[in-house]
Amino acid sequence: MQPIANRMLNYLQPQMYAKFTMLANQKGCINLGQGFPNFPSPQMIRDALSEEAQTESLQYTMTSGHPKLLHSASKFFEQQIGCKINVDKEIMVSSGAQAVLSCVMQGVLNPGDEVILFDPAFDLYRPMIEFQGARHIGIPIIPKKLNNKQEIIKRFKDGKFQYSQDDDWELDFNYLERVINKKTKLLLLNSPMNPIGKVFSTEEYNQLADILDKHPQVVVCEDAAYHHITFGKYQPFNYPRCITHPRLKDRTVCVTSAGKMYSSTGLRVGFAVGNEEIIKGIKAAQTYHIFCLNPVIQTATAKCLDQTLDGKYFQSVKNLYEEQANMLLKGLVESRLNMNYWVPQGGYFKYFDDNGNRLTRDFAFAYYMINEFGVVCIPCSPYYENKQLGQNYVRWAFCKTTETIQEAINRLK
Amino acid sequence: MQPIANRMLNYLQPQMYAKFTMLANQKGCINLGQGFPNFPSPQMIRDALSEEAQTESLQYTMTSGHPKLLHSASKFFEQQIGCKINVDKEIMVSSGAQAVLSCVMQGVLNPGDEVILFDPAFDLYRPMIEFQGARHIGIPIIPKKLNNKQEIIKRFKDGKFQYSQDDDWELDFNYLERVINKKTKLLLLNSPMNPIGKVFSTEEYNQLADILDKHPQVVVCEDAAYHHITFGKYQPFNYPRCITHPRLKDRTVCVTSAGKMYSSTGLRVGFAVGNEEIIKGIKAAQTYHIFCLNPVIQTATAKCLDQTLDGKYFQSVKNLYEEQANMLLKGLVESRLNMNYWVPQGGYFKYFDDNGNRLTRDFAFAYYMINEFGVVCIPCSPYYENKQLGQNYVRWAFCKTTETIQEAINRLK
Ligand SMILES: Cc1ncc(COP(=O)(O)O)c(C=O)c1O
Ligand SMILES: Cc1ncc(COP(=O)(O)O)c(C=O)c1O
Repeated sequence: MQPIANRMLNYLQPQMYAKFTMLANQKGCINLGQGFPNFPSPQMIRDALSEEAQTESLQYTMTSGHPKLLHSASKFFEQQIGCKINVDKEIMVSSGAQAVLSCVMQGVLNPGDEVILFDPAFDLYRPMIEFQGARHIGIPIIPKKLNNKQEIIKRFKDGKFQYSQDDDWELDFNYLERVINKKTKLLLLNSPMNPIGKVFSTEEYNQLADILDKHPQVVVCEDAAYHHITFGKYQPFNYPRCITHPRLKDRTVCVTSAGKMYSSTGLRVGFAVGNEEIIKGIKAAQTYHIFCLNPVIQTATAKCLDQTLDGKYFQSVKNLYEEQANMLLKGLVESRLNMNYWVPQGGYFKYFDDNGNRLTRDFAFAYYMINEFGVVCIPCSPYYENKQLGQNYVRWAFCKTTETIQEAINRLK
Repeated sequence: MQPIANRMLNYLQPQMYAKFTMLANQKGCINLGQGFPNFPSPQMIRDALSEEAQTESLQYTMTSGHPKLLHSASKFFEQQIGCKINVDKEIMVSSGAQAVLSCVMQGVLNPGDEVILFDPAFDLYRPMIEFQGARHIGIPIIPKKLNNKQEIIKRFKDGKFQYSQDDDWELDFNYLERVINKKTKLLLLNSPMNPIGKVFSTEEYNQLADILDKHPQVVVCEDAAYHHITFGKYQPFNYPRCITHPRLKDRTVCVTSAGKMYSSTGLRVGFAVGNEEIIKGIKAAQTYHIFCLNPVIQTATAKCLDQTLDGKYFQSVKNLYEEQANMLLKGLVESRLNMNYWVPQGGYFKYFDDNGNRLTRDFAFAYYMINEFGVVCIPCSPYYENKQLGQNYVRWAFCKTTETIQEAINRLK
């Protein structure tokens, strides 16, 4: 008996994150690998869950989401993002941004379709695309400049690294124009971007719209899992977005995550907002997928959205993450490691080039870090179509307490 | 722009259950349609959720399930079902039995594979099979006898309808032998069976094993969502099962639902137990699907399993459901409706033949019931490959309070 479907055969190993987290635990490492916060979840969400567990119905809810949550989320997004949402038609709730993305792939892609994404891309995208019998094509995003220690430290002012043009990663629009064609069904992008911390600019979206105008069949999926963590000139939720871009919004489905927003990755509540037709397809996928989400976690999430509607809570989250990002980058720059660095514009992660040192191919480097320094980071070739390109990079998560980051820095000294 | 994948185009309408529940609400009907209990969820589960919400980590858990839940479930199944489970390899948790089934289809089926199921079959099975590019083949299960009012009422003794051979539905093994072939990858069965309340017998499983012995590539998926609701001679959890059948268990994955077990369909916790290889494929599917389940609902479910390990709780649940089933059947037999009936062996539902009356094709009949009687039941053609066969039947849910059932009976008088 060979019971496993062919599509799964490449994916039977435990995921990289699970492996590195296990190693971290076994070896007593500081884990800057998997992107989960190690500071406490907000008490607000624990209390909301406790209360709703006592009062909310525990039976099936609507497939598209609990009406309370659909209303609270629509109101929140309207206020914070500035997009009007028809609650019946333009929003769906699923089990984390991950399950939303999985429904998008199933609801939108036909076998043989092509999907454009950017290299590096969140490593879970590619398998989800393949499972639909579709093909992924990665457009390289290349750093404008390699910033060594001497250069990056100059930008440290008033306790902060100042983002500059030199930290930017550039999209190859010529490449995009070359590969986009009538089989292209979906363009999948992520801003702020995991793993590189890039935020796409309005100019980039304008250029993208120019190209997409010639390809009306292409759906845009904007993964905004980190839309509340934006640094420098950008405010939480308020940065250039497809879902509010005048020429992109009508073809866009925007994916977000309440788990990321409330620093509770285990919450497993995510949203799809966008074009009614796309949402229709996603809802159909969800019906035969998870059917519906637990009502308690939905109404508890609704309460948190209501309580943070004015956005103040997210200012403090942003400030916290920005501090952690700066602290970790400073520690890395002052460490024994001789690398290239970029100041992130948002997200959970810091990116890092191994400077071409022979020993430091990404996985070798990550294992070396574990054994020699007792610190876990994440190798980045799995984020790349072109593994050669990806093997120069590792990713550090800064969604960690000051104590954790300080201990990592001490170990790297 | 036509953003929706072809596979979804047949499934864009709201599901039958949602439609009939909406109608029930609009028209003030008694809803014996969708299979969710309308009596309160056990306080035990509400308290467990409240407590765990305060103390359990709210970050990502393992894809296969929270270790606490995997342990508690394994212990429970070992004690109640009598199957030994390797916690690391032979069990997985997902978002309800539905999501487990969805992972089974994705983890096991290749495009072009064939799946054998039984007609009637739970209506969500077929789309899930189609989405993998696989084909479903329904083997008819036919009632041995049509029992009219006069016949069925003779079996009412001591406040109970006694199950007899005449209530049995028979599987066409010749048909099965004719259609099974080397492309058959999966055989999917459900016992106790939604919608007909049938429990497969050991003799039937022996005969099935004889046939499957000639087809070693076939995986058996046993949907035991109602394994705690068994009537007459069968005890909760303790009835003929594939997962404990000596000749079937090694090729079986058994699917169950904590939501059904604790009368809380919104809980969204389901289990897959079985062959290590099959579970490996299912885990891979889950990784790219929901990634992992909310830890609070998992550890709360673990507590409930621990608290009900001795099985006493489920005796009282079984007794309750058996009473409701008898009450509803009695009411139907004594009503103005002139139909054929079967005494169920388990499950949430009662089955019912419209006696060939021209007006009463299943949907027409269901709408007629709504308009004339103010009672909702579920038409059964969607459960059939052969809609002609299915249109003779409707399904009544008895997972409802005594008041609800009494009111339905009053309206049908
Ligand atoms: C870019 C990106 N998208 C989606 C997700 C999944 O988010 P969730 O935890 O809500 O499923 C992640 C999680 O790491 C992510 O980094
Ligand atoms: C036969 C059968 N299997 C599976 C399910 C799904 O169960 P869950 O609510 O745990 O997803 C149902 C629900 O009605 C069912 O009747």
